[in-house]
Amino acid sequence: MSAYSKLEAKAREIARLREVAAITHWDEACMMPRGGGTGRSEALASLATLIHERVADPEIGELLNRARGEGIELDAWQSANVTNMEREFVEATAIPSDLVRASRLAELKCEQAWREARARNDWATVEPLLAHVVGLARQQADALADAMHLSRYDALLEVYEPELRVADIEPVFEDLKAFLPGALETALDRQGEVAPLEGPFTVEEQRELSVEVMGLLGFDFERGRLDVSHHPFCGGVPDDTRITTRYLESSFIEALMATCHETGHALYQQGLPRDWRQQPVGDSLGAAVHESQSLLMELQVCRSREFVGFLTPMIRRHFGRSETDAAWSTDNLYGHVTRVARGYIRVDADEITYPLHVILRFELERQLLDGALAVADLPEAWNDAMQRYLGLSTAGKDADGCMQDVHWYAGLFGYFPTYTLGALTAAQWFATARKLIPDLASNIAAGNLRPLVDWLRENIHGRGRQVTMQPLLQEVTGSTLDAAFYKRHIETRYLS
Amino acid sequence: MSAYSKLEAKAREIARLREVAAITHWDEACMMPRGGGTGRSEALASLATLIHERVADPEIGELLNRARGEGIELDAWQSANVTNMEREFVEATAIPSDLVRASRLAELKCEQAWREARARNDWATVEPLLAHVVGLARQQADALADAMHLSRYDALLEVYEPELRVADIEPVFEDLKAFLPGALETALDRQGEVAPLEGPFTVEEQRELSVEVMGLLGFDFERGRLDVSHHPFCGGVPDDTRITTRYLESSFIEALMATCHETGHALYQQGLPRDWRQQPVGDSLGAAVHESQSLLMELQVCRSREFVGFLTPMIRRHFGRSETDAAWSTDNLYGHVTRVARGYIRVDADEITYPLHVILRFELERQLLDGALAVADLPEAWNDAMQRYLGLSTAGKDADGCMQDVHWYAGLFGYFPTYTLGALTAAQWFATARKLIPDLASNIAAGNLRPLVDWLRENIHGRGRQVTMQPLLQEVTGSTLDAAFYKRHIETRYLS
Repeated sequence: MSAYSKLEAKAREIARLREVAAITHWDEACMMPRGGGTGRSEALASLATLIHERVADPEIGELLNRARGEGIELDAWQSANVTNMEREFVEATAIPSDLVRASRLAELKCEQAWREARARNDWATVEPLLAHVVGLARQQADALADAMHLSRYDALLEVYEPELRVADIEPVFEDLKAFLPGALETALDRQGEVAPLEGPFTVEEQRELSVEVMGLLGFDFERGRLDVSHHPFCGGVPDDTRITTRYLESSFIEALMATCHETGHALYQQGLPRDWRQQPVGDSLGAAVHESQSLLMELQVCRSREFVGFLTPMIRRHFGRSETDAAWSTDNLYGHVTRVARGYIRVDADEITYPLHVILRFELERQLLDGALAVADLPEAWNDAMQRYLGLSTAGKDADGCMQDVHWYAGLFGYFPTYTLGALTAAQWFATARKLIPDLASNIAAGNLRPLVDWLRENIHGRGRQVTMQPLLQEVTGSTLDAAFYKRHIETRYLS
Repeated sequence: MSAYSKLEAKAREIARLREVAAITHWDEACMMPRGGGTGRSEALASLATLIHERVADPEIGELLNRARGEGIELDAWQSANVTNMEREFVEATAIPSDLVRASRLAELKCEQAWREARARNDWATVEPLLAHVVGLARQQADALADAMHLSRYDALLEVYEPELRVADIEPVFEDLKAFLPGALETALDRQGEVAPLEGPFTVEEQRELSVEVMGLLGFDFERGRLDVSHHPFCGGVPDDTRITTRYLESSFIEALMATCHETGHALYQQGLPRDWRQQPVGDSLGAAVHESQSLLMELQVCRSREFVGFLTPMIRRHFGRSETDAAWSTDNLYGHVTRVARGYIRVDADEITYPLHVILRFELERQLLDGALAVADLPEAWNDAMQRYLGLSTAGKDADGCMQDVHWYAGLFGYFPTYTLGALTAAQWFATARKLIPDLASNIAAGNLRPLVDWLRENIHGRGRQVTMQPLLQEVTGSTLDAAFYKRHIETRYLS
């Protein structure tokens, strides 16, 4: 048995344990009764430790050294598979286990305190805990940076999106900073009023609508399901993809758009290369590319005038509304899904303001990590940036300011940019698809997503981790990451 | 850290992985879409292998040797914990892994062939496959017997119910063989007609009834849930107990009684000693004692005249029936849940015929294992026994004869007796409870199960694996396994 074959066998075992972990996590979010919580946390922690031991197994390091030199010709997929194994092994072994343990403990403590303190708008309580987490995050980033021969923040980015660098991000974010504030003014000026969509909307009606739309978008129900959880997510594995949404009786748009978003993630997962199941090269790329697939479905397709036109009669049918009611016209529904507003909260933001929320976090977290910004000064820095980018003050409102997101309190640094990179690349992929697929707009207007999904399967989903984000963008769209596509999308949808 | 403490730590890790396995198995039966099947089987097999490696870890053997001699005083629970660890370790290490693998393969092949052959009543196809499975089962039993210093069949029994022996079973089965055929004649003579209960009964109505009855019986929904699967079962862990049932629109009694049965299992699981979570001594006893808890709830409580009297108005309410309709009277409902009939199929059998189905299998599987009966002669031997015990011929009807149960085709030998031992001990526990709990019958007639469940918690559930079945019976009921209790129950319910 060659070293390469042994590596494949080890990767397969790891993937199988990860499947079990994915399903058990889904169960925790969707099915588990409250009393199971303590035992489940312990069980999942044990499983995670066990998986980590397997990923960091020194024998994998030896096999990786041998695989490249054993004279067996590896094809492009196999070679990329080894590259991805190397990446995973370096990441898993970079941080000393004492530091991993200390960080997990500090993060757990900080996140729990944050949950309660946020409800009380109580920054003072979390400040020292967050300072501790930031200190440990810096140490972790340095350990990763050493092992990966990267700078501190690039090492964090590498974990979330292979080969993504600050140098890729900075120019496009500068471009957006110059463009979006003005675009926001214009869009706010131009947008008209919308008529309210009066509920209630039963969970059963909304669920049936969600399922019908998922089917339209190409979700394979033989290999997945839709359930409810507190935060929508996409979990499971390619042949058993679990997405969730969350229903409000007072409004159906949130659940429907969350379903469209998660279906985009699901299509990526279900479309991964069948021949490379349970191998690193057969997995999805990082968080930015994954988000590009969810946002392509949500923003580019489902919030488009064409698709809303197709959905209008379907929505009316599910909720028993009449076409003579003007509130239930395509114009009014389209107005609802493309509404723009200045706001404090990232997760409620629209296409124009969302990147500004992200840029603010990207800038502040880099300063926190390199020490230019002390944790004690975070509320003030946040307020300054919000005034600059969105004209809103968060002074005295930390719960809606620097305490609104769990990420930092849970030790997640380097993740925020992937949201906006997902939005930008979604626009970039979609602009290319529009050029290459005949009649794409009229197909979408007729509810026929097949040509688009087939194109995504061939060009993105089916590629797995064979190439990283930038080369894939270059190959498929003719250029690397470029904000121009997103700006054009914003102009077309909101400014013209 | 003492050897004993190390053993506890290792047991805890194993229990956590088993929790993950239990939830993932539940998911496979209740939630998984079809396409997930192949990957899931592989994932569960990998996890099972991993758990087995941990259970059979040679270090556990060494720690067990040291734990007894290290001079640390172990209390009764700790000492029983070690005994249970020893039992598990001996069982896990007794069978050479080559033999385990060969057996699993043969069983998988045989079970798959059986599934299709049964539908065609095709004995010839499965005969050689079953012969192979029996041969391997004999080798496995011999390996277990060697390690456990037991006879071949006792070694198999030991796996399903610790310390249960053929010598415990034979006299009570002889007792039943002398009693049940005559009792069946009398019961058939005495029972009247029942009026049909006309459906349809919607799944939602039946589910709501099931949930209400589970609550009455003491199921803790904060630590468990009810779902649907093809075969009803009880899974999960003590603080997250998952039971399932299955609904027919044409009749509600099957689903309701399955729910009562699984709730009995669930109460045992939820009632296990809280201080000994994730330790072998805190687990439930074997299949016979587990079945005694499900059958106590189903047969002794839920099919009793008292409880049916309490349920009658509740059932009428759920299905919107009138009390003036005689079919929906307590008498008629009681007639339905205590119906007796000669039949071919074990799983459809009533309280009087069920033990005869089991005795037949117990006798034949022992002959198969010791070679007194060749697999080729099984259909004829089955037919002979069915004529003798139930007066029914299965000649030419193997699908309803020796091919009706999956057990042997899946390599399960030694399991069948536990069903009837469960029924017998259920009667034995319940007769004692009736003696010791004031007004038990009138409490049940009033839907108050609390005193009974409290008594079960204290005397059985909360004991875990501190003592095995026979000593526990002796301690709680004043005698070891004795068919007299069951015979008296049959007399009272069916013959007087």
